[in-house]
Amino acid sequence: MATKTALKPLGDRVVVQRIEEQATTKGGILLPDTAKEKPQKGKVIAVGSGRVLDNGTKVPLEVKEGDTVVFAKYGGTEIEIDGEEYIILSERDLLAVI
Amino acid sequence: MATKTALKPLGDRVVVQRIEEQATTKGGILLPDTAKEKPQKGKVIAVGSGRVLDNGTKVPLEVKEGDTVVFAKYGGTEIEIDGEEYIILSERDLLAVI
Amino acid sequence: MATKTALKPLGDRVVVQRIEEQATTKGGILLPDTAKEKPQKGKVIAVGSGRVLDNGTKVPLEVKEGDTVVFAKYGGTEIEIDGEEYIILSERDLLAVI
Amino acid sequence: MATKTALKPLGDRVVVQRIEEQATTKGGILLPDTAKEKPQKGKVIAVGSGRVLDNGTKVPLEVKEGDTVVFAKYGGTEIEIDGEEYIILSERDLLAVI
Amino acid sequence: MATKTALKPLGDRVVVQRIEEQATTKGGILLPDTAKEKPQKGKVIAVGSGRVLDNGTKVPLEVKEGDTVVFAKYGGTEIEIDGEEYIILSERDLLAVI
Amino acid sequence: MATKTALKPLGDRVVVQRIEEQATTKGGILLPDTAKEKPQKGKVIAVGSGRVLDNGTKVPLEVKEGDTVVFAKYGGTEIEIDGEEYIILSERDLLAVI
Amino acid sequence: MATKTALKPLGDRVVVQRIEEQATTKGGILLPDTAKEKPQKGKVIAVGSGRVLDNGTKVPLEVKEGDTVVFAKYGGTEIEIDGEEYIILSERDLLAVI
Repeated sequence: MATKTALKPLGDRVVVQRIEEQATTKGGILLPDTAKEKPQKGKVIAVGSGRVLDNGTKVPLEVKEGDTVVFAKYGGTEIEIDGEEYIILSERDLLAVI
Repeated sequence: MATKTALKPLGDRVVVQRIEEQATTKGGILLPDTAKEKPQKGKVIAVGSGRVLDNGTKVPLEVKEGDTVVFAKYGGTEIEIDGEEYIILSERDLLAVI
Repeated sequence: MATKTALKPLGDRVVVQRIEEQATTKGGILLPDTAKEKPQKGKVIAVGSGRVLDNGTKVPLEVKEGDTVVFAKYGGTEIEIDGEEYIILSERDLLAVI
Repeated sequence: MATKTALKPLGDRVVVQRIEEQATTKGGILLPDTAKEKPQKGKVIAVGSGRVLDNGTKVPLEVKEGDTVVFAKYGGTEIEIDGEEYIILSERDLLAVI
Repeated sequence: MATKTALKPLGDRVVVQRIEEQATTKGGILLPDTAKEKPQKGKVIAVGSGRVLDNGTKVPLEVKEGDTVVFAKYGGTEIEIDGEEYIILSERDLLAVI
Repeated sequence: MATKTALKPLGDRVVVQRIEEQATTKGGILLPDTAKEKPQKGKVIAVGSGRVLDNGTKVPLEVKEGDTVVFAKYGGTEIEIDGEEYIILSERDLLAVI
Repeated sequence: MATKTALKPLGDRVVVQRIEEQATTKGGILLPDTAKEKPQKGKVIAVGSGRVLDNGTKVPLEVKEGDTVVFAKYGGTEIEIDGEEYIILSERDLLAVI
């Protein structure tokens, strides 16, 4: 469901689009909507050019477009562009790649 | 609607002018004014000369005059000059370029 | 009880899986469930590529996959992947290896 | 209305004197005093010798005596010298030059 | 009363075991248990490999196994291993060696 | 009214003695004591040897014994030595020299 | 009244013993005990080996054993060793030498 976007993140930021998870329990039973927790996974849509260190070097991001990432629940800023919702996060709010 | 300004931002700051968005829903229906969220987009009107690193190097900004940017909702200082409203932001409060 | 995971932690982060401790007192008597404190031990499932210093050097983590670690009680972010629960922690939240 | 002062600011500080703005609306109507917001503009009266970086270099200020500046509303320390009111601000509290 | 432990502290951390002090007043009278203050002294059981500086150098700890140390009352994390209680502290929470 | 003192400030600290200002209004009328604001001016009595930068260099203070300085109202620690009151301040709490 | 101690402070810390001041007013009248403010002066009993800078250099302390120092009222940790009370302070909590 991830889409192209015109958003070009700045610095160490990435644009992520939430992945809606299929709500099933361990045993495979589908849960009604209210029992789902808000997901913390997303698809990387775009990445910034990197973080500038104190010595002037620019460190490129560890993630790239298309990666599926886990991110901190309360990090980032939500934005809607052309009817699509995105989250802009700092790379430090990304925890892992799946 | 962006205008020239006499404001010359200092350091890593930029002067931005809010872009009033056309309030339409995904399906294209125009929303009355109270349903609109305050926009987080703006046009860069002027940029500072850059941030000085601890090693003395000056890093020029990633954005330039004329860029359309997304910025953090609560960042920046609002100022009115000659009847026009501007926001002065640090580059770190800019999230992405559209 | 530790399992393989598709989670690849970023930067100085590690993926840890809690170790359920056998609840016995010093004298060896089994305690009922409510008397147990939430454990602070886990198995390292995956480690990030390291922390980037201000001089650009990347410092590899001190722990490796398979290590049993003690971690700060309130550190980290919990995540469930394929019905398994993991904690993603920064290396600084790891206190010791057992 | 800016005046000479004996104040020599230290480090990265500047001495600024508030500019009382003519209170007119966009349409040119004069507003009574209570409708005016406290101005955030001032004239630079004196500047410090600069900020010392961690590598020992001293960075001179970007602003100079006589500049008209916009500054953060709650920054700075007010002081009265010889019946004139001044504000002493760090350069980081200056946002832009007009 | 200090014992060997399998705990290997990470980074600049140390494993300490509290020293129960003989509760006597200045004049040598034994105090009942409730009059004792929680001690701030302990025996160093194990030390980490050191702290990594921003320039990449690793600084070994000033304390070593067997040292008796004074530590800040509220620092550290308590952990029980094999029925023994330990405190894992950062070296900066150690104040002095006795 | 400034006096010699045996206080030798450490690091980037200075010893300052408050200057009691003549309480007159702009028009020269003497104000009773309760109308006076606590002054923020003082005479530098002694200065420390300077601040050590992260690169090991010691930066001498910008102010010297005998300077009249303006300092932040809530900075510093008050101390009485031989019946005289002093304030010990970090150089960063000094705003300007008069 | 200062005594030798077995306490060897770590890093940039110092061991200080409070100096009980003779409570006299400016005019020389002895004050009863309740009118005394808790003193902020002490004798340096022992000093640590110094602070390690980010570049790896160790900076020795400015104070030495035997110095009389003024220290910040709320800094430090109090400890009783062999019936004597000491305060362990970071060098940054020492304000001046008398």
